[in-house]
Amino acid sequence: MAAIKDSVHDYITLNPLAQELLDTVEFQRLRHIKQLSTVRLVYPSANHTRFEHSLGVYHLATQALDQLDIDADRSKHVRAAALLHDIGHGPYGHQTEGLIHRHTGRDHDEIEWLLTNGDPFAADSETTVPDVFSRHDIDPARVAALVRGDGELGQLVSGELDVDRMDYLVRDAHHTGVPYGTIDHGRLIRELRLIDGELVLAEGNVQTAESLLLARAMMNGIVYRHHVSRIAGAMLARACEQLLAEQAVSIEQFQRMADHDLLVALHEQVPKLGRRIERRQLYKRAVWAGVEAVPAGLMEFDRSDEREAAREIAAAAGVEETEVVVDIPSRPRLKESATQVVVGGVVQHLEDASELVSALRSAERSQWRLGVYAPATAVESVRSAARDCFGIQT
Amino acid sequence: MAAIKDSVHDYITLNPLAQELLDTVEFQRLRHIKQLSTVRLVYPSANHTRFEHSLGVYHLATQALDQLDIDADRSKHVRAAALLHDIGHGPYGHQTEGLIHRHTGRDHDEIEWLLTNGDPFAADSETTVPDVFSRHDIDPARVAALVRGDGELGQLVSGELDVDRMDYLVRDAHHTGVPYGTIDHGRLIRELRLIDGELVLAEGNVQTAESLLLARAMMNGIVYRHHVSRIAGAMLARACEQLLAEQAVSIEQFQRMADHDLLVALHEQVPKLGRRIERRQLYKRAVWAGVEAVPAGLMEFDRSDEREAAREIAAAAGVEETEVVVDIPSRPRLKESATQVVVGGVVQHLEDASELVSALRSAERSQWRLGVYAPATAVESVRSAARDCFGIQT
Amino acid sequence: MAAIKDSVHDYITLNPLAQELLDTVEFQRLRHIKQLSTVRLVYPSANHTRFEHSLGVYHLATQALDQLDIDADRSKHVRAAALLHDIGHGPYGHQTEGLIHRHTGRDHDEIEWLLTNGDPFAADSETTVPDVFSRHDIDPARVAALVRGDGELGQLVSGELDVDRMDYLVRDAHHTGVPYGTIDHGRLIRELRLIDGELVLAEGNVQTAESLLLARAMMNGIVYRHHVSRIAGAMLARACEQLLAEQAVSIEQFQRMADHDLLVALHEQVPKLGRRIERRQLYKRAVWAGVEAVPAGLMEFDRSDEREAAREIAAAAGVEETEVVVDIPSRPRLKESATQVVVGGVVQHLEDASELVSALRSAERSQWRLGVYAPATAVESVRSAARDCFGIQT
Amino acid sequence: MAAIKDSVHDYITLNPLAQELLDTVEFQRLRHIKQLSTVRLVYPSANHTRFEHSLGVYHLATQALDQLDIDADRSKHVRAAALLHDIGHGPYGHQTEGLIHRHTGRDHDEIEWLLTNGDPFAADSETTVPDVFSRHDIDPARVAALVRGDGELGQLVSGELDVDRMDYLVRDAHHTGVPYGTIDHGRLIRELRLIDGELVLAEGNVQTAESLLLARAMMNGIVYRHHVSRIAGAMLARACEQLLAEQAVSIEQFQRMADHDLLVALHEQVPKLGRRIERRQLYKRAVWAGVEAVPAGLMEFDRSDEREAAREIAAAAGVEETEVVVDIPSRPRLKESATQVVVGGVVQHLEDASELVSALRSAERSQWRLGVYAPATAVESVRSAARDCFGIQT
Repeated sequence: MAAIKDSVHDYITLNPLAQELLDTVEFQRLRHIKQLSTVRLVYPSANHTRFEHSLGVYHLATQALDQLDIDADRSKHVRAAALLHDIGHGPYGHQTEGLIHRHTGRDHDEIEWLLTNGDPFAADSETTVPDVFSRHDIDPARVAALVRGDGELGQLVSGELDVDRMDYLVRDAHHTGVPYGTIDHGRLIRELRLIDGELVLAEGNVQTAESLLLARAMMNGIVYRHHVSRIAGAMLARACEQLLAEQAVSIEQFQRMADHDLLVALHEQVPKLGRRIERRQLYKRAVWAGVEAVPAGLMEFDRSDEREAAREIAAAAGVEETEVVVDIPSRPRLKESATQVVVGGVVQHLEDASELVSALRSAERSQWRLGVYAPATAVESVRSAARDCFGIQT
Repeated sequence: MAAIKDSVHDYITLNPLAQELLDTVEFQRLRHIKQLSTVRLVYPSANHTRFEHSLGVYHLATQALDQLDIDADRSKHVRAAALLHDIGHGPYGHQTEGLIHRHTGRDHDEIEWLLTNGDPFAADSETTVPDVFSRHDIDPARVAALVRGDGELGQLVSGELDVDRMDYLVRDAHHTGVPYGTIDHGRLIRELRLIDGELVLAEGNVQTAESLLLARAMMNGIVYRHHVSRIAGAMLARACEQLLAEQAVSIEQFQRMADHDLLVALHEQVPKLGRRIERRQLYKRAVWAGVEAVPAGLMEFDRSDEREAAREIAAAAGVEETEVVVDIPSRPRLKESATQVVVGGVVQHLEDASELVSALRSAERSQWRLGVYAPATAVESVRSAARDCFGIQT
Repeated sequence: MAAIKDSVHDYITLNPLAQELLDTVEFQRLRHIKQLSTVRLVYPSANHTRFEHSLGVYHLATQALDQLDIDADRSKHVRAAALLHDIGHGPYGHQTEGLIHRHTGRDHDEIEWLLTNGDPFAADSETTVPDVFSRHDIDPARVAALVRGDGELGQLVSGELDVDRMDYLVRDAHHTGVPYGTIDHGRLIRELRLIDGELVLAEGNVQTAESLLLARAMMNGIVYRHHVSRIAGAMLARACEQLLAEQAVSIEQFQRMADHDLLVALHEQVPKLGRRIERRQLYKRAVWAGVEAVPAGLMEFDRSDEREAAREIAAAAGVEETEVVVDIPSRPRLKESATQVVVGGVVQHLEDASELVSALRSAERSQWRLGVYAPATAVESVRSAARDCFGIQT
Repeated sequence: MAAIKDSVHDYITLNPLAQELLDTVEFQRLRHIKQLSTVRLVYPSANHTRFEHSLGVYHLATQALDQLDIDADRSKHVRAAALLHDIGHGPYGHQTEGLIHRHTGRDHDEIEWLLTNGDPFAADSETTVPDVFSRHDIDPARVAALVRGDGELGQLVSGELDVDRMDYLVRDAHHTGVPYGTIDHGRLIRELRLIDGELVLAEGNVQTAESLLLARAMMNGIVYRHHVSRIAGAMLARACEQLLAEQAVSIEQFQRMADHDLLVALHEQVPKLGRRIERRQLYKRAVWAGVEAVPAGLMEFDRSDEREAAREIAAAAGVEETEVVVDIPSRPRLKESATQVVVGGVVQHLEDASELVSALRSAERSQWRLGVYAPATAVESVRSAARDCFGIQT
């Protein structure tokens, strides 16, 4: 079997199905979508892509399938799901997810259409995922369900104990240089069990489960939600809205772009913001306010509320509308709290077995921040307008 | 002082000069130029850029300046040279260097024009290197000379014992997962001495010097000259020639493009080759011949000879001209053989102190390969035409 | 300056004082005292010693002194304290600490006697710490006070933010292979400040402080308090008591033994237990009970209560007294909760700034276990006797 | 299956046979024999033992057996051989090997007696290797033959491409911090083939084979033959001779000692040298002469010639006999040069396929050094006496 050298897992062995999927246009496109999008503007070594991440997820899924002793037919569907779980991402991954959802109604993990029809922009001479699926007798609907997290094996692909998270935590740590994501995935996989249709950790692993939770909490604060990355991400989302609004590209084209396509399109069509993102000339924080400082209700804002607020603030501050970017994260969730662990012979949710879960939930809440960003020269006027607009206490 | 987290050297501390240079358009552009260009098609984790590499070179240069106890004025010029040594690279670095040289007469390390005038495409609102140089009283001509390797401290920036190589070997090992580049740069730097205007390694370091040589030799064979990377690189160079020939972009624009600009331009202007590179639908080896199998003289071929041969082969094989790519590396050099080491109190060239140097020179020669590449369907006809054309023994 | 290669921090540079201290008998003895004593019976790669750990602590202390800009006189005392902080340990470190304290009234960090008089068993021809101190004009009382944690710089050697913990967490992770100790010591040191005579972390570092706490909590559960290591440690403590009770060695000799001396002495003088420890023929858990299952008051047991209980259980179970080992850890403390961090311009204790502290305190409590150990063949009878003795609920 | 955490290979899975062998007295003794004996006096982190090394060898052997698709009966013998290949070592491994050979006629890898009879000092209650072998129907003679390197699978345990070397190079690099041993064992094992009863590397792996050779050559010079380690090793060998000469212990006891037993025995019976080794008060180099400087014939000296020379030098210098230690390494061999590789479809010896082999052979020769060591105070007189004795040119 072929093997690919990976800087995280060393050799990743590919079976014939995986080798063929690797050569499809849908999978090759992932070479051009960075795993951490704008985080590289803070941690300059973090240029890894969803391509090698997907290989890593495939690698861990293969180990988990061995551990759980799954039959060949189910295994091939899980392997395909592991490898392809990210092909539905638009350019810059999560940064454009909301926008694509508003236009298409689809999240990045709803990929049945793509698995069934293949990339609409593939040339005739190019191999697509459906070509490979039909050769290997793989049902796109079953793969799509696994990617959505359905069923006991779907939990392995997308759930509290999924191999997606195990790979990205370790990989992001390797590439940022921030150690806190380095979990013991070997142990997590060795301790997986299927009990009554649920994927759980065997007896004696409350702390193993907590380690996942803690690693994510630390990486959230230090890496994923770093304010510089958030500023760049919000500017990017803002620029993409304008790109679509000006009908420079269709949503169909947009969602199949790769990072480099988007960077060039923004540079050409939304030059001010585009160039700023490319050359890291970022806006500054005019407002950066925690849960206690903002009125209740703000956490429920959606993107159109954000845009409305930005318009209002810009008008009040006397600056151009594109010079105000409002960034209101949604209410923090702590998905891993639903991890199931065997304790004293009984399957329990981690939040019932661990004192840490509720503390981490509070910690997540206390790390929440509303951001309003503007060019350095406009920061003062935007700050005062934004405080008025949102009713923020000083 | 500010610090940046790096996955290789951990924290890199930046002095005020470095911080300001970091924010220039010329330096920020390096975020978008990958260190190993097409190697990522073989080693998918190798997506690191010349941005973080340049930070690493700055970091090691700072250590070396401390070790050598260099005064402040010379130090600031060396620091600037270390940080900026790669800003003259075109998109995809070495892969486009020959082409740019043929059009402009300049190699990537001739950057006095750029240090003096700044990036010609910078907007007025953007900070350029000359802005920073004038604030810090730095002479662009001196920096350019250091980047060329002139003088005893120029050897530190570009020479047999330069910090450029020390960084890239370790960094490329970290990101490819191939361990052989992991040299002991700490020791190399601790053992640096300036003796009679030459940068040398102190007594007792023949093996330290050999380690650099061996690391490069191993990385050459396994990473830098991997045939898949060479095929993609040769296809890219071929596509770029066409891009310029069709005057879709000027050479002035071309040389200041970043990787993503080039990828989009090729995709749009040279679609067949462009798309193949983007989606890794690479040509196959029709010919792959070593020194013994090819006629003397072939090693001296230049790019126009290559193009001439490709035309001839395509005609003989009855395929389109773009379906034949000829790739003839120049005669291998072993630059590190000139490393100077103190042996028995006398400064010697490594090749006089080490048995390994001549063996490595032979090994390099035996690894040399002429390549002719073509689409899978045309491989047979191209092979036979190419053998005739070059007079290659079977 | 001399440099020593370390597998964790790479080169550790030693100033002349450190070089001379390195060659003293007191410091060289640390080569023979393992950092993690019986943990190696669970994690076989964990054979590192207090020698290289002490070098690591010296290395980090040097960085912290630079960061805090401390003058030469105070610095040399801190360097000496960092390097020598562990020379008061008996064989097997913490495992014999209680025993030595009962006989001498001294803890391992009370070392003024040793710094003043030197190792009582040093030969005349050997260099001791007092020899070096007098050459370098170092006051043993000041060094001893720093090792005890007195004063603002004492907190750097022994306190909530000490470099001791920073080194051992990372080193233990490196050698066990358990990743959770790998903290970002570079950041912790960069963020140290002295404010009003207290060592604190600068603004924006609540999560940095939490990372230390979490790393210790994870390593506690997975490494330091692993039940196999606890069993071996309790057997060792029991065997040492007997060694001293039989007056085979004096307490003066005992406390200056190295690991290998103790292993041979136990093998010869307490052969049954000694051989079992050497060949890892460990007792099994007859009882392993958490806080909820045991009567209040048990947590306050001291060593003589343990011995009394063991005698009683052995009699009831009809086995030899040495075949019952009772192991009651003291009430868990969470020393790091007193870490001081600047939040909103005010120095706060971490427990007031972090939701995690109280959760970790609860988690520590829920991980507490009383252990009673016996040879495999006696486990059943000892279990039932022990439950009666302690009044443990089933 | 059980798994053990290793700092080099992460989890090592043990089958039931391996688990039982792990608990034998012969295997547990390896916990107390350091892999690199006196190297830790130069690289203080290098305290790893033959216990975890043997687990690593077992781990790689298991991977190789899978790769080569070996049947269950042969596999179990190879697994046993991999795990037990080092149990014949005396204390301090190679440092006492010559001495034991002179007394018993056996090298460390002749272990049939031990596999058949078990450790002669095992207590009745302890499990020995023969107990486990009889339970698992394993033939000690076959295992012994594999450990000696007999047969195609013997080459896997002890030969040019053995997993022993693959493990120790990587492990020694991890623990010393010297990177040069970090080979790509994953690739080496993937490329193993059995062709005509020989273990070879598949086509395309000349450089893979060279990497092993180069890693050993670098580690030899920088780690294994570091002069400080050689001095301590020669002092230790000298002290052991005296220990046996004084009949303080029998050769039967001596060869089954562990490191700590020997250290205590030397301390007690040969106190001057013993204490010096324990506290690193090492002799200095009076003579350190290369091949060119010494008369032909010296390379053929055996240990009794060395002792004779030491006596003569001591007399001439007017110092005690134990104050002169003569250390003459045997002629360097380059075992890996016989590695077999498929080149152009034909199995070739590496030395016929690689230019590097003969260069490394010369390099090894040029690194050879004769050493004569003495206490600092006696260095001058011993130097001049030694030069006379050996006829060394200045």
